Amino acid sequence: MTDSLLPGTVAADSFALDDRLAADTIFVASWPLSEVRMMNDEQYPWLILVPRVPGAREVYELTDQQRRQLDKESVLLSRTIMDGFSGHKLNVAALGNVVSQLHIHHIVRFEQDLAWPAPVWGKFPVIPMGTDEISKRLTLLDALATPDWDA
Amino acid sequence: MTDSLLPGTVAADSFALDDRLAADTIFVASWPLSEVRMMNDEQYPWLILVPRVPGAREVYELTDQQRRQLDKESVLLSRTIMDGFSGHKLNVAALGNVVSQLHIHHIVRFEQDLAWPAPVWGKFPVIPMGTDEISKRLTLLDALATPDWDA
Repeated sequence: MTDSLLPGTVAADSFALDDRLAADTIFVASWPLSEVRMMNDEQYPWLILVPRVPGAREVYELTDQQRRQLDKESVLLSRTIMDGFSGHKLNVAALGNVVSQLHIHHIVRFEQDLAWPAPVWGKFPVIPMGTDEISKRLTLLDALATPDWDA
Repeated sequence: MTDSLLPGTVAADSFALDDRLAADTIFVASWPLSEVRMMNDEQYPWLILVPRVPGAREVYELTDQQRRQLDKESVLLSRTIMDGFSGHKLNVAALGNVVSQLHIHHIVRFEQDLAWPAPVWGKFPVIPMGTDEISKRLTLLDALATPDWDA
């Protein structure tokens, strides 16, 4: 399944996670199309999907098959984090103005969070999590490691 | 096609566009799932899709069939506005912190626009368009009135 979603693995075309995304996020899972990563910011439960499609900048540039898988992954991620963190509202966004490598934010929002009701970007500086908080969140997100696509 | 995508039309369940969305936007087209509307802000080419699904707040709450149609509509809208306005980057987002009725922003961004590279929300007050600018943009978006789903 993985192979057919992603283009050939000629070295020059191979996927590499953007350096800034790598620095700002923590690995959670590797799904058929996307890497699932957690933003290292204790202010919000904030996950991102990064499709492993070399050079992709926009959702509409993906093939139909890749978009269908992205939709599956986005829905499963959305439900899991809204359930896991008992969220009030989900913000889903593909922006890419700063890091152009296609990545889709999934941010759990609460009426009590710091930025509410504004979007989170550029609002407050990131507060990196301690290792305890990272472990706690990864435990909550345990289901993402063995996704049930047919649920 | 339209009927099967949308729930029954019992009066109590019927779809009504949120008052604030109605006030802030201009009608562009009515597609099988969504209303296509243009934000009345001359600072950015900014279109929104509003699925006519009563009570929907989140993309993941839609049925598989509705999400498949939303994907089609989002891709066609994305391509048309990026082509029509020769955009540099597209911002696609479902936020809904202020207006909870599900609506998906599609904003054409330029490296020269006022808010770049920040997201547009809450950055600068809206500047309503004059009627000439509205006509000009609607002409550019003419293809949206008769969408070619198989293109």
